[in-house]
Amino acid sequence: MFIVFEGGDGVGKSTQANALADWLRGQGREVVLTFEPGDTPAGAHIREILLDPATGELPPSAEALLYVADKAIHVEQVIRPALARGAVVICDRYVDSMLAYQGAGRILDISELESLAAWATGGLRPDLTVLLDLDPAEAMAEIETPDRLEAEGADFHQRVREHYLALADKPGYVVIPARLPADEIAARVRAALG
Amino acid sequence: MFIVFEGGDGVGKSTQANALADWLRGQGREVVLTFEPGDTPAGAHIREILLDPATGELPPSAEALLYVADKAIHVEQVIRPALARGAVVICDRYVDSMLAYQGAGRILDISELESLAAWATGGLRPDLTVLLDLDPAEAMAEIETPDRLEAEGADFHQRVREHYLALADKPGYVVIPARLPADEIAARVRAALG
Repeated sequence: MFIVFEGGDGVGKSTQANALADWLRGQGREVVLTFEPGDTPAGAHIREILLDPATGELPPSAEALLYVADKAIHVEQVIRPALARGAVVICDRYVDSMLAYQGAGRILDISELESLAAWATGGLRPDLTVLLDLDPAEAMAEIETPDRLEAEGADFHQRVREHYLALADKPGYVVIPARLPADEIAARVRAALG
Repeated sequence: MFIVFEGGDGVGKSTQANALADWLRGQGREVVLTFEPGDTPAGAHIREILLDPATGELPPSAEALLYVADKAIHVEQVIRPALARGAVVICDRYVDSMLAYQGAGRILDISELESLAAWATGGLRPDLTVLLDLDPAEAMAEIETPDRLEAEGADFHQRVREHYLALADKPGYVVIPARLPADEIAARVRAALG
């Protein structure tokens, strides 16, 4: 089973991913808790380029290509091997992050990005995606030292949120308001697992 | 004018690129002498990931995506601005390197790579490509400390050479045997410029 947490920065994705991992481990399941970008040795270098404010301006296409390269490495070296041995994989951000941030945020062609992502991941899709939804203005208030993408303006983050909500309007997604108490969110996530 | 030097490792591309730059500067032209991958700040990080043997195995798609990301940055930040102000750009490796190494070498779909490269470069093609051709066995003898790609086997480098020759079999290319004396090569390059 492959579960992805999505949403803007500062909405509590990693808290909820951790809580779900603990709960599943308590049920005796092997859980691989991972994230994008950067949870492989080469991916960590890519993450540095993407998020370090010192990188400065990058063409939007280059930014998207770096995210996709990270996904190709992550799927091959971490996600697929874990799924193949029967582990549950919980991933903090996946393809939808790129569609929301580089597609809607940077205004690149979404269908081009979808093809790129499908090529790089071999078409691997999550069984369940949990979208933690929050008004970007509230989320940004939680962030002390913004990285290169967090430092984008309010319009950027508003487009990201709206695209996330549009993506989540289909089967395989659950949308949970991120301002709910953490325990209530965790309970809704477990309920969504069926 | 945009001139690219292509060919396997150890064939003398940078020597010839330098010689041509000197000659053109002697004619009073502004010349921007550059290379791929890695001749921008973000590109230098990408180059490290690609060529450092410590990176280990990368999925072929990830390797291609990193090369393409480097090209997107390089074209936007270096090549197009130089061409726009009327400089001659001489580049050591460009899109054909990726088609030969990642397409023929790693055996990825060449038309997929061509679309990727066209997307990332905005379709920018050289006015002239100089292919320095050499049997890979001879070229490898020149290299003391192979990088991650140079360390590939003889079959890989043979496929790269053959694909280069196939690409060069059309207008806009000149193929020069790399074992000729450097002065003779330089003279043939100048003749190809017309």
